[in-house]
Amino acid sequence: MGILDTGIRNAKNVRNYMFGPGSIQSLPKLLQAPRQNRDQRVGFFIDEFFKNNASILNNLAIESGDHVVFVPTEKEPTTDQIDSYLSAIREKNLNISAIVGMGGGITLDVAKAVANLLTNPGKAADYQGWDLVKNPAVYKIGIPTISGTGAEATRTCVMTNTKTGVKLGMNSDFTVYDQIILDSDLTSTVSRDQYFWTGMDTYVHCIEALAGSYRNAIGDAFSREAVNLCQQVFLSEDMMTSEAREKLMVASYLGGCAIATSYVGVVHPFSAGLSVVLGLHHCVSNCIVMRAVEEFYPEPYAEFWKMVEKQNIHIPEGVCRGLKDEEFDRLYASTIVHEKPLTNALGPNFGKILTREKVKETFLKM
Amino acid sequence: MGILDTGIRNAKNVRNYMFGPGSIQSLPKLLQAPRQNRDQRVGFFIDEFFKNNASILNNLAIESGDHVVFVPTEKEPTTDQIDSYLSAIREKNLNISAIVGMGGGITLDVAKAVANLLTNPGKAADYQGWDLVKNPAVYKIGIPTISGTGAEATRTCVMTNTKTGVKLGMNSDFTVYDQIILDSDLTSTVSRDQYFWTGMDTYVHCIEALAGSYRNAIGDAFSREAVNLCQQVFLSEDMMTSEAREKLMVASYLGGCAIATSYVGVVHPFSAGLSVVLGLHHCVSNCIVMRAVEEFYPEPYAEFWKMVEKQNIHIPEGVCRGLKDEEFDRLYASTIVHEKPLTNALGPNFGKILTREKVKETFLKM
Repeated sequence: MGILDTGIRNAKNVRNYMFGPGSIQSLPKLLQAPRQNRDQRVGFFIDEFFKNNASILNNLAIESGDHVVFVPTEKEPTTDQIDSYLSAIREKNLNISAIVGMGGGITLDVAKAVANLLTNPGKAADYQGWDLVKNPAVYKIGIPTISGTGAEATRTCVMTNTKTGVKLGMNSDFTVYDQIILDSDLTSTVSRDQYFWTGMDTYVHCIEALAGSYRNAIGDAFSREAVNLCQQVFLSEDMMTSEAREKLMVASYLGGCAIATSYVGVVHPFSAGLSVVLGLHHCVSNCIVMRAVEEFYPEPYAEFWKMVEKQNIHIPEGVCRGLKDEEFDRLYASTIVHEKPLTNALGPNFGKILTREKVKETFLKM
Repeated sequence: MGILDTGIRNAKNVRNYMFGPGSIQSLPKLLQAPRQNRDQRVGFFIDEFFKNNASILNNLAIESGDHVVFVPTEKEPTTDQIDSYLSAIREKNLNISAIVGMGGGITLDVAKAVANLLTNPGKAADYQGWDLVKNPAVYKIGIPTISGTGAEATRTCVMTNTKTGVKLGMNSDFTVYDQIILDSDLTSTVSRDQYFWTGMDTYVHCIEALAGSYRNAIGDAFSREAVNLCQQVFLSEDMMTSEAREKLMVASYLGGCAIATSYVGVVHPFSAGLSVVLGLHHCVSNCIVMRAVEEFYPEPYAEFWKMVEKQNIHIPEGVCRGLKDEEFDRLYASTIVHEKPLTNALGPNFGKILTREKVKETFLKM
């Protein structure tokens, strides 16, 4: 009998989720099973933002012997960085039975990568790509502390290859969290700009997905509701009420679910260009790119700037002014390389629309 | 350290889903791993509707030695029926490594129950309740062939206890499917009435959830988008186009997801009364109850009847006329017993609103 490959993706869900203010207090209960044997230890990867926040750290029920890492978030993670986290665990000869990642997209991704490498030999770089991870990861729990990247729901963990400079994730079903805790109390201390920029990551990738040619009813449903929630949050008087933060946390999760069966469009490739060449973080880059994409996304463009105004948010401007030709060449190259999203948005002849000159003009609008 | 029980539910997702017309052709590939050893067999539980449908059955790649059951759907399943399915497998001494359920809510639930009992000792009735299943079930794949019940996404499998007559599911994380295949091609041959009645199951429980007092942002998001999809389907000119059937399949899945963190309201308890006392099936019962709930759900009531008219659907009428007092007593008892949904809809004093007389009047409106 022939085994057909239908080309239809087999989307992987997070196994369990808890939702609601205060849900982080369930963490000790969730860790009871992985702590069953006396030698079992939990590895905590926590955004450095919480390093001195005792009231948050106390909820985690960290035990002596556990392995705790405060993850720096100034730069996006590298493969060498992941490898060094692994070495530290191996040197201590720890029996890690669970990994807890708590933070934004960077920290959640770091925790995913470490959990994969604990059960798979070799280095982080060996698994950058699609479905290269061979063994199930260590049981892992994700706790987002800012909403929008969707890292809590996706099957990738993005990192920059230290040698090649290429930014690529370990795309694998094993990368998906077993358990996530969606506690919107944790997002109350985020700065307003950061809250907006990050929240907009889900808005942007969902409006890109909904405008694309590669569509399906389930991806559309997740994207539509994520956009709906972002509208409720960012067009309201106060985007950071308790209710708004709950909604944005759901939008982020659903946006992450949407990624499983959809593609982004024009914004993300340009945004990647800004990250690679200028070192700008992903979420603020998206917002900067929104300055220049009115012709591709006229209605979301208008809505986005209405939200910016409503919430009185600072979006950096003029970031590409005065760059050299060589830098524009690199911007062009690192944008145009994203064939799948650009094809989704503009068709297979996207290169004829996004000429070198057009791409430079577009970056100059930002 | 104290282990807090926050009272927040830990929702379990289906592990993997495939979505799209033709996705059923992926089934043989998904069964490759469970068929790895020569003695491993697959148990198929298939709605009897497909018994003579070779073109559908051929997609399933049933092998000689597999265990195939065509599930009758005239009546809802009983615990004795489930036990007899188990006995048949045990008599043949089969090593079942995967269960495939293909059909409507009844068949999907039967397959879940059998998969649980293959790895847990005793009888079906032993596990009716909450979190009584001790061991993970056999790997199981669900393939809905009609949309609306959400059985493909939920952690229960409803069955009637043969001895006590009580209708109760095995509510357990282990009941959730490991894999579902959402292939809307399979719903093209459903009769129009059945398609509407069943599709309305998700509409009804989502409008109940959204009108309740027990609410949360993630349950609301799933419910809202499921209702949105039902509106798109049932207010369109033709509810059974290929596009509409895709949308309804998504609505059913999201409706099932919504159940994980929400409660139904007034309709389901009355509907349960009709099922228990008059033996009416769940989905058509919901539609019948919609005749009598204008005061509780005025806007959904108006919308529901607009959909009925638009699609020209038959909803049975007068089903409680001429019943005896004793039957009305049983209807009352089997409605009012559903405390959680009634509290969700009407508050803890729901009994003062739904008096014996009021309940009888309501049933007489149907």
